[in-house]
Amino acid sequence: MELAERIRAGSQVSLARGLTLVESRSDAATELLAEIWKDSGRAHVVGITGPAGSGKSTLVSVMAQEYVARGKRVAILAVDPSSAYSGGAILGDRIRMTELAGRDDVYIRSMASRGATGGLSRAVLDGIVLLDAAGFDVVILETVGVGQAEVDIISVAHTVLVISVPGLGDEIQAIKAGLIEIADVHVVNKADRPGADLTVRQLRESLRLTPRAPHQWNVPILKAAAATGEGVPELLDTAAEHQAWMARGDGLGEVERRNAATRIRWAAEALVADKLRSGHGGFDDAVEALIAREDEPREAAARLLTAMAVDPADINGRRTS
Amino acid sequence: MELAERIRAGSQVSLARGLTLVESRSDAATELLAEIWKDSGRAHVVGITGPAGSGKSTLVSVMAQEYVARGKRVAILAVDPSSAYSGGAILGDRIRMTELAGRDDVYIRSMASRGATGGLSRAVLDGIVLLDAAGFDVVILETVGVGQAEVDIISVAHTVLVISVPGLGDEIQAIKAGLIEIADVHVVNKADRPGADLTVRQLRESLRLTPRAPHQWNVPILKAAAATGEGVPELLDTAAEHQAWMARGDGLGEVERRNAATRIRWAAEALVADKLRSGHGGFDDAVEALIAREDEPREAAARLLTAMAVDPADINGRRTS
Repeated sequence: MELAERIRAGSQVSLARGLTLVESRSDAATELLAEIWKDSGRAHVVGITGPAGSGKSTLVSVMAQEYVARGKRVAILAVDPSSAYSGGAILGDRIRMTELAGRDDVYIRSMASRGATGGLSRAVLDGIVLLDAAGFDVVILETVGVGQAEVDIISVAHTVLVISVPGLGDEIQAIKAGLIEIADVHVVNKADRPGADLTVRQLRESLRLTPRAPHQWNVPILKAAAATGEGVPELLDTAAEHQAWMARGDGLGEVERRNAATRIRWAAEALVADKLRSGHGGFDDAVEALIAREDEPREAAARLLTAMAVDPADINGRRTS
Repeated sequence: MELAERIRAGSQVSLARGLTLVESRSDAATELLAEIWKDSGRAHVVGITGPAGSGKSTLVSVMAQEYVARGKRVAILAVDPSSAYSGGAILGDRIRMTELAGRDDVYIRSMASRGATGGLSRAVLDGIVLLDAAGFDVVILETVGVGQAEVDIISVAHTVLVISVPGLGDEIQAIKAGLIEIADVHVVNKADRPGADLTVRQLRESLRLTPRAPHQWNVPILKAAAATGEGVPELLDTAAEHQAWMARGDGLGEVERRNAATRIRWAAEALVADKLRSGHGGFDDAVEALIAREDEPREAAARLLTAMAVDPADINGRRTS
């Protein structure tokens, strides 16, 4: 497939087309993913989440600049689980990132994921594969807002940064949103504001209360000020340390296995859905038998699944059905 | 299964337990559904939707009383797609329905369905089967609010009533919410209010603009006032007429086929999910091959599906795995 070739070669225009395909969940997207899969698996996926007003977007921009300064190619995937449409607001903000605009080694994209099962969007996971295969060393996966959907999305990342900020409320937003459990690194942003040390202390206290197995990663609490760039190099160093720690132990394997299992299940669902439709095999007869109460749904499904006999050769790039 | 027996025999306590099982989507629910399926398929499922403030709940109560007066057994299933938890608000309202409380021939239940794929909750469709098998002649499926989730839910009904009300805004809410296409009967509730005739005219105009095949059901616009009961007998008559019309033509078959197809797909998904998990068959090996980039997700899924060879005998009530 020519598109896969061009994405591998680093064409951002082709990458954008690939990501749009992936968002549409078309057959072409499935083909593209199948072809490009083996080129993925190298990028460090850094998830960033935190409440609105925590300065996430600015921090992500400054981090991206620092990655670029270190010779890394970096992609930013901003996901809004509360929206069914991408574009607009998120990308709008990024137009301010003039330092990053028009560079080969930086790519910025937003995605909407509302309506995705269990909050985790297939398009997001597939999008990461494309960015990874396109040769980006770091994929920053940023979510807008905090909630269960954001937690689900961010859990595909290798390293999760949770952003807090002093003075947004009397309690730390990350604690309220249940983000303590998923953070690999806590970042108190806008640390030049009064109350930053209080926020750090509150985070430290709630970390102390979070049960943690021995030999587990010791979650650091870093202070940063995205506006001045203060603390950002340390943030990147810590993310790299976490990645190395993950690679040494089974942490990386655990994330990869969880993601791979999700992918296989999704692929199986798609294959089954493709067979279980009107006009295909015995589906219509099974439906009639169900209505006539001669059969019940589970037995009908089992019979159809057994009969469908998926032939792996049949799906290798060129299906005939 | 004793529970199925007791539900068939009309025990409301057992029915409530069955519905709670169905909401939990446990294995026991699957067993129950399989056993009770053949006793379902008799109830008239009447869907009711409309914006907040349209007096839906009161109208549903008054309709239920009228059904009871006509010697029918009636169940009300109130679904809130915006909530992940059932109970609370919806049922609270219904405590006012003192005329209906404690009767054998009336059953009221609320269900939450937030997070369901595509808006249509499996628990809702399964709940209808239980109520149907429990011998209710009419199942009133009521949604709270108007939106795509509500449209998806209500589309499983045989007869869809869309409620409008004068003076909620300068345009009719049903039109704004895209409910015109799914209505079998339009009801202008609170028809004693000024502006009712204007609302009727606006609905008629938008129906005129909605393309309609020849020999299609001619969607009536009825006026009602739930508070006084005015127009409610005509509403029931019209719903019965629509049911008869559906039964004569292929309309009923169409709804039943759509629902049956959905059920088979869901059952297949559940069977596949049951096999595609850690420790089962070649799943873990497939996951490792994926991480090693020796395989891509779709081929891995196809191989596992082919290998899983669902044995219908294996799932008949007593699985061993």
